[in-house]
Amino acid sequence: MPYPDEFEGFMINEIGKYSDFKKQSFKPKKFTEHDVDIKIECCGVCGSDAHTVTGGWGDAPTPLCVGHEIVGKAVKVGSQVKDVKVGDRVGVGAQVWSCLKCPQCKSNNDNYCPHKVDTYGCPYPKEADPDETISQGGYSSHIRVHEYLVFPIPDAIPSHLAAPMLCAGLTVWEPLVRANIGSGQQVAIVGLGGLGHFAVMFANALGAEVTVISHSPSKKDDALKLGAKHFVSSGEKDWAKPLAFKFDFVLSAADVLGADTLQEYLSTLKVGCKFHTVGLPDKPIKELMPQFLTSNACSIGASHIGSRVECLDMLKFAAEKKLFPWVETIPISEKGCAEAIERVNKNKVHYRFTLVDYDKAFRA
Amino acid sequence: MPYPDEFEGFMINEIGKYSDFKKQSFKPKKFTEHDVDIKIECCGVCGSDAHTVTGGWGDAPTPLCVGHEIVGKAVKVGSQVKDVKVGDRVGVGAQVWSCLKCPQCKSNNDNYCPHKVDTYGCPYPKEADPDETISQGGYSSHIRVHEYLVFPIPDAIPSHLAAPMLCAGLTVWEPLVRANIGSGQQVAIVGLGGLGHFAVMFANALGAEVTVISHSPSKKDDALKLGAKHFVSSGEKDWAKPLAFKFDFVLSAADVLGADTLQEYLSTLKVGCKFHTVGLPDKPIKELMPQFLTSNACSIGASHIGSRVECLDMLKFAAEKKLFPWVETIPISEKGCAEAIERVNKNKVHYRFTLVDYDKAFRA
Repeated sequence: MPYPDEFEGFMINEIGKYSDFKKQSFKPKKFTEHDVDIKIECCGVCGSDAHTVTGGWGDAPTPLCVGHEIVGKAVKVGSQVKDVKVGDRVGVGAQVWSCLKCPQCKSNNDNYCPHKVDTYGCPYPKEADPDETISQGGYSSHIRVHEYLVFPIPDAIPSHLAAPMLCAGLTVWEPLVRANIGSGQQVAIVGLGGLGHFAVMFANALGAEVTVISHSPSKKDDALKLGAKHFVSSGEKDWAKPLAFKFDFVLSAADVLGADTLQEYLSTLKVGCKFHTVGLPDKPIKELMPQFLTSNACSIGASHIGSRVECLDMLKFAAEKKLFPWVETIPISEKGCAEAIERVNKNKVHYRFTLVDYDKAFRA
Repeated sequence: MPYPDEFEGFMINEIGKYSDFKKQSFKPKKFTEHDVDIKIECCGVCGSDAHTVTGGWGDAPTPLCVGHEIVGKAVKVGSQVKDVKVGDRVGVGAQVWSCLKCPQCKSNNDNYCPHKVDTYGCPYPKEADPDETISQGGYSSHIRVHEYLVFPIPDAIPSHLAAPMLCAGLTVWEPLVRANIGSGQQVAIVGLGGLGHFAVMFANALGAEVTVISHSPSKKDDALKLGAKHFVSSGEKDWAKPLAFKFDFVLSAADVLGADTLQEYLSTLKVGCKFHTVGLPDKPIKELMPQFLTSNACSIGASHIGSRVECLDMLKFAAEKKLFPWVETIPISEKGCAEAIERVNKNKVHYRFTLVDYDKAFRA
């Protein structure tokens, strides 16, 4: 059955068999008058998609359609929806529902709503969907989303460049703005990948002096092009020593975090400052001694995407400053999805993929 | 040889043999014109003393005299010393020297000076002492300390009650004031021991609504007497669930920190708030997943004592508000030191020991 009864997507039928994408139909949640149906135009390929389909983050319900960096056109809009009209170009990130009643939702922390629904692999609560449907992501023809999690895309940002902002961009934007990063501050970005390359652009555009810390000396040129002032190769012995007490904020997008390395990063912070990770490794940090934190009263933090307000602010800021990610496009197909996930897994991405040509893969 | 050539102390000759205190002589650092010699009147018994002599924190140089909650009278004052006169009643905490030149020292973060000298077991840098003497603590007749780390004791605070403030009190005062704890805030104190009982008194007096979280239900009455409004027994199943997103600050003085327990504490924080530990376990936190921090963007921090300015502020605040620790006194002797350490080790202290009767143990 075609839209609106069923949606079509490129899906995984067993976690771990991550190169085995199949084009299948699935039933969306029941439509409510606060929902927006979006015909998808393109979708970014996020590290989360790879962590999920490989099983690195544990099990997930199947069949599963991943993808949470979605741009498309609103094709149906509930009668209660305020800010979206049919035909609008809109985006959806890693969250599709929020209760809008809890203290978190009421304080622009909807991304920390304990009842929130992630864009894929997450059951809707009864209150949002009597069928408690499991959410499905954007490697698909359509998505149905609560208006609160639908974001108008500014005209200045092409769709395939807007898509990766909706998870990767927002994930680094949120901690930077919550840490009040601005001029006069020294900021280190650890790891130059999908998240890291956004972080360098944003931190630089917010006014900070940016240092990129990376294991790969070959990334130096990219780091400087993206706006970093300094590049430090963490493969070199004692690299952290000259950086002691230097940074106001260290934002890590690294996917692997050993206790030894962590201790080195922590030593580069000014007194009372924070090491904030948005990279979420498959494996835990072993053997963390609280003593690692006492020589400069530093702290270790993490965060999860950003709020609606922060997403709108980021899109506005990126449009005004013309801050666009470095994107390679891949036409969506069974093969295209598998290739994208495999290359993200092997870090062979420079620095983000967007799946495109949806009109060729899906009818209507 | 007696003072001023040598000092006498109750010392440990082998780390691990912690009930074997012997009265011995030791040579102090060379006197400089910024130093103050203090004839010690009493000294608090800190958890650090126990962690050190048992070897829990690793090896330490011997013979070693521990003790870093010292109150006594200034008996000799260098010609450059500004704020201390012979005869003044003064205190010394866990630090005896600071470079006063680095960015940390120049920003009232002298407790994070990378060149600092701890009160015992720490070699002086050449610049402070040509002999690079290893510092010795306050289970002794005298101590020689740089004026910057010597604190006048307000008249309103008896010596045996002032002593434990100089490490335990300051250690919890610093994170509370740096977190701007005050009225309208929900603060949890984890663990009601030497540090915890100070934290409850201070957080309450600063205006916060205090919850004590403890494994020992028997401590409820003490918690309420000290100023807590609520008591939660962390031995009970699902104790953390009703506290989700409740606290603005969680200050942990617990000596043991498992990853499971940590995750429960973290869940009680409001979005963006901090779990701060001043308890420094002998063993690392195993298997910390950054994911523990993402549901509320919380962070994990720690700190080390406090600055000179914070110590003076704390003493003033405690004197004005008559906030005194609960102290049991023990006459200093070989047996008395061993008893104190053993009882601290077994958590049989209610809530702090001060070693007293120094005039009976040491000549002149």
